[in-house]
Amino acid sequence: MTLNEILYGDTIFKEGSLVLEAGCGVGAQTKAIAKNSPGARIISVDISLKSLSAARKKAADETNFPAEYLNCDIFSLPFLKNSFDYIFVCFVLEHLKNPRDALLELLKFLKPGGEIIVIEGDHGSAFFYPDSSDAKRNIECLVSLQAKAGGDALIGRRLYPLLKDADFSDVCVFPRIIYADSSNPALVRGFTKKTFTAMVEGVGFDVISSGIMTEKEWENGIRALYRTCEEDGTFCYTFFKATGKKI
Amino acid sequence: MTLNEILYGDTIFKEGSLVLEAGCGVGAQTKAIAKNSPGARIISVDISLKSLSAARKKAADETNFPAEYLNCDIFSLPFLKNSFDYIFVCFVLEHLKNPRDALLELLKFLKPGGEIIVIEGDHGSAFFYPDSSDAKRNIECLVSLQAKAGGDALIGRRLYPLLKDADFSDVCVFPRIIYADSSNPALVRGFTKKTFTAMVEGVGFDVISSGIMTEKEWENGIRALYRTCEEDGTFCYTFFKATGKKI
Repeated sequence: MTLNEILYGDTIFKEGSLVLEAGCGVGAQTKAIAKNSPGARIISVDISLKSLSAARKKAADETNFPAEYLNCDIFSLPFLKNSFDYIFVCFVLEHLKNPRDALLELLKFLKPGGEIIVIEGDHGSAFFYPDSSDAKRNIECLVSLQAKAGGDALIGRRLYPLLKDADFSDVCVFPRIIYADSSNPALVRGFTKKTFTAMVEGVGFDVISSGIMTEKEWENGIRALYRTCEEDGTFCYTFFKATGKKI
Repeated sequence: MTLNEILYGDTIFKEGSLVLEAGCGVGAQTKAIAKNSPGARIISVDISLKSLSAARKKAADETNFPAEYLNCDIFSLPFLKNSFDYIFVCFVLEHLKNPRDALLELLKFLKPGGEIIVIEGDHGSAFFYPDSSDAKRNIECLVSLQAKAGGDALIGRRLYPLLKDADFSDVCVFPRIIYADSSNPALVRGFTKKTFTAMVEGVGFDVISSGIMTEKEWENGIRALYRTCEEDGTFCYTFFKATGKKI
């Protein structure tokens, strides 16, 4: 299975339903979720015009792109209350200082009986072979940086209490583990190398310049992550999908 | 799903096949695997007479118990080479100094075309909400103690290279994540509390008496593990099931 299939394969919106994708970013997920639900109308919003223009640019390259992009803040949505059948929130709550407030706000826009679908990662779920305390330290730095910015890179494990606390009912959480070894080179390349390790590498400058780790320590950790992509290496990471209803 | 269903539900031995359960211990898994394969003949062996007599005692309480228990060492099995259709190894390799040698030895007793099924945990896969550095330290102590005794409590993540390195072909590894929150109280009680936390608690005396942690530190960690069993807590742990064939 591909990463998209593991994460979105069972997210299906009913024929004729109205869906809000809250915080679509550059539209990385939009097409994947739309693909499974050709009969749904999807409105994707993001607070960042820059991200949205990247999303729109990608959409413009396709005929009949299945979603509409709108620039708005999820804390001041221009929609009628009780109007969406589904709200889809993917890799958004991890960045927010106040994820519960965001969920309470989104709840207002769901129809009674409507469903929220939340997907988030959890960087504390990563483990790998060969194990490496250097790589673990790199990942901890990533978590610290996100915490400093007001986010929570360990949010996956707390989706259950978060949705319950935001007054959703019938809350269900489904872990989605990604396990990559050399029997699936596409997943090793696509996930371990180009998604996870690339993301960790991306904060190297911030970590080194903030003095938390030396350049040498940091690079040891990055090397250890690449090492897990070799013939005998393995890599695990868990995403969480949560669903909840509005009564 | 119950823990047994998650771990053994898809382990099915063909009608008429001969199965070796290598390292059955007190027979904790024997009945669960036999249940799915009433047409198979299962021979369960263990090196410890004490464990086996506990297994036999449990078996004696049942009519038509579906397996035969034998006392022997997996490094000197009294069977003909190339005689088993399946070899099932569950929570055994983690205790061995030489898991590769054990696998090479077991390989001899598989028929060509026969299959090995290995199930192991990985204590480094545990994470939970609320997070706790004390509880993480307790778990690290457990891993260190097992390493000192010659075992590897992080063996789950390396089943893939281990089976490949022991000359098995078609090696496939399937992670089995256990996720428990208060929507499933039976799993919280049965797994988080009575399996994982109880196992960690079980080594408390060794850890404290070896001076690695003070009694107070240790108890803080244990309290934090119990805390994850409350209404808003969550707990994750990943087991690994690996299969390999003899060419």
